[in-house]
Amino acid sequence: MLLDEIRGIVGEKETEDDCSVLDLSDRHLVMTTDMLHEKTDFPKGMTDYEIGWMAAAVTLSDIASMAASPADLLMAVGLDDPSRLPDITRGASACCSSVGARLAGGDIDRHTELTIVSTAIGFVDQGKILRRSGAQPGDLVCVTGMPGCAEAGLGGDIRFWKNLITPVPRVVEGRAFSEGGATAMMDISDGIALSLADLGRASNAGFSLDPALFPLIPGIPKERATDLFLFGGGDFELIATVPPDQFPVAGVDATVIGVVTEDMAILCGGSPLPHRGYLHQWELGAGSIGINP
Amino acid sequence: MLLDEIRGIVGEKETEDDCSVLDLSDRHLVMTTDMLHEKTDFPKGMTDYEIGWMAAAVTLSDIASMAASPADLLMAVGLDDPSRLPDITRGASACCSSVGARLAGGDIDRHTELTIVSTAIGFVDQGKILRRSGAQPGDLVCVTGMPGCAEAGLGGDIRFWKNLITPVPRVVEGRAFSEGGATAMMDISDGIALSLADLGRASNAGFSLDPALFPLIPGIPKERATDLFLFGGGDFELIATVPPDQFPVAGVDATVIGVVTEDMAILCGGSPLPHRGYLHQWELGAGSIGINP
Repeated sequence: MLLDEIRGIVGEKETEDDCSVLDLSDRHLVMTTDMLHEKTDFPKGMTDYEIGWMAAAVTLSDIASMAASPADLLMAVGLDDPSRLPDITRGASACCSSVGARLAGGDIDRHTELTIVSTAIGFVDQGKILRRSGAQPGDLVCVTGMPGCAEAGLGGDIRFWKNLITPVPRVVEGRAFSEGGATAMMDISDGIALSLADLGRASNAGFSLDPALFPLIPGIPKERATDLFLFGGGDFELIATVPPDQFPVAGVDATVIGVVTEDMAILCGGSPLPHRGYLHQWELGAGSIGINP
Repeated sequence: MLLDEIRGIVGEKETEDDCSVLDLSDRHLVMTTDMLHEKTDFPKGMTDYEIGWMAAAVTLSDIASMAASPADLLMAVGLDDPSRLPDITRGASACCSSVGARLAGGDIDRHTELTIVSTAIGFVDQGKILRRSGAQPGDLVCVTGMPGCAEAGLGGDIRFWKNLITPVPRVVEGRAFSEGGATAMMDISDGIALSLADLGRASNAGFSLDPALFPLIPGIPKERATDLFLFGGGDFELIATVPPDQFPVAGVDATVIGVVTEDMAILCGGSPLPHRGYLHQWELGAGSIGINP
């Protein structure tokens, strides 16, 4: 994969987590960037305000996933039409404010297709950072919210349109997981199946999921709901591993969906979990059902 | 102008300098982002390695212009062809290393036109940061290098092709200006005329330039050389204001080209300096000769 080639240049450690990490004397600075395009990343029907919100949210979610508090966000906008900028900026600014961050600046450029790159930094005290590595066999696998909603919204379920277009970065929950003793964490923007694969690789561990525990979307067939839960993309919820004696975690409404195992396989109801979900187009295999189909 | 509208949302202070500034306890964190496109920003004939270098350099130059030391750079790349990524990454990594920074991560996406957004952070001690505001009447106006070279290179002067495509961020010079008592600073990537307009507005001051002092490109007609010097874009040199008793500044090979005045006009040889140079396409007026023609 392309990412593997880049790891050789940038470094394995630098590319493992949702954010890059810089050690300051008493705390870590975490930093992340995301590029979004109109055609592939913003579902049709979104307003420019919502586009700005989403562009900020995806990056702020990465900060949240390291248990950090976002401080500043920069936004570079390639515009097909300059009149769109004010509403995009208002949306991004509102999303930043909602999690205590500041829209601190950016860059404006012309582009054939609306292209937004947001970059955020945040801070987390030494000893409080959560990475993809660190999950221990026996830990509980916990998720926030109801994964699958965004994909359902994309598929036309209007109950979840807002989940899709104005995701809420789980900053409060991320910090609470850290305070509550979680051992590893990431966001599930690419879907639970792919996220667990990343978490397992970084932690040298596997997972055994129990479908009976999944918080499924009500009112749709169970099989479809399970599929959305495991493979749907676009939810900016958190998945964390928590030692059993630390659960429940104060301040987080999380659901246990399985346990961490020594064996590196990912099992769901005893069967191997297919490796699919949201995939970057360069890595597309068969069966992607993500928001970039 | 579009930027003015955004200032109302993001804040006047946030958009005044080359970087946004976040105050830590003992130092400032500075942060900046730039979007570049293949067709408008990368002159034809550049290799992918050089494209990566330039994408990093433009952002690192902004960090240098605040007298800060760059620490980390993130790069979001929208690729028309995935095979280009390794060389782009190598070029960006080399540029980072050349100034003591680290290519710390990024994001990869597909795009119809190669699009690169680099974002850098740096640190500068309290009291050592240089901004666009701060220039005092009587200060000397100093520039590094030989502005106009990049534009000359773009125009076919092969002596300066390297100036155009692999600009060197003036990190050492930026810090030296600060140590040597400079009062204001910025980089001149949009050309000297536009940079002085920004510096003057932020400092509530004007400038009187003496054409006899300009370090002009040798071997071409003086009028053309003067035009390149004042209005050419793409040079990532620094312009700083320095009290007369502090000049020369140790560690910087700078040329004095004029003085700061109380009157807010910008004069060159006693006549008003035209307001032109590199302009973002949305702001294009008559007479732009920048690298985004």
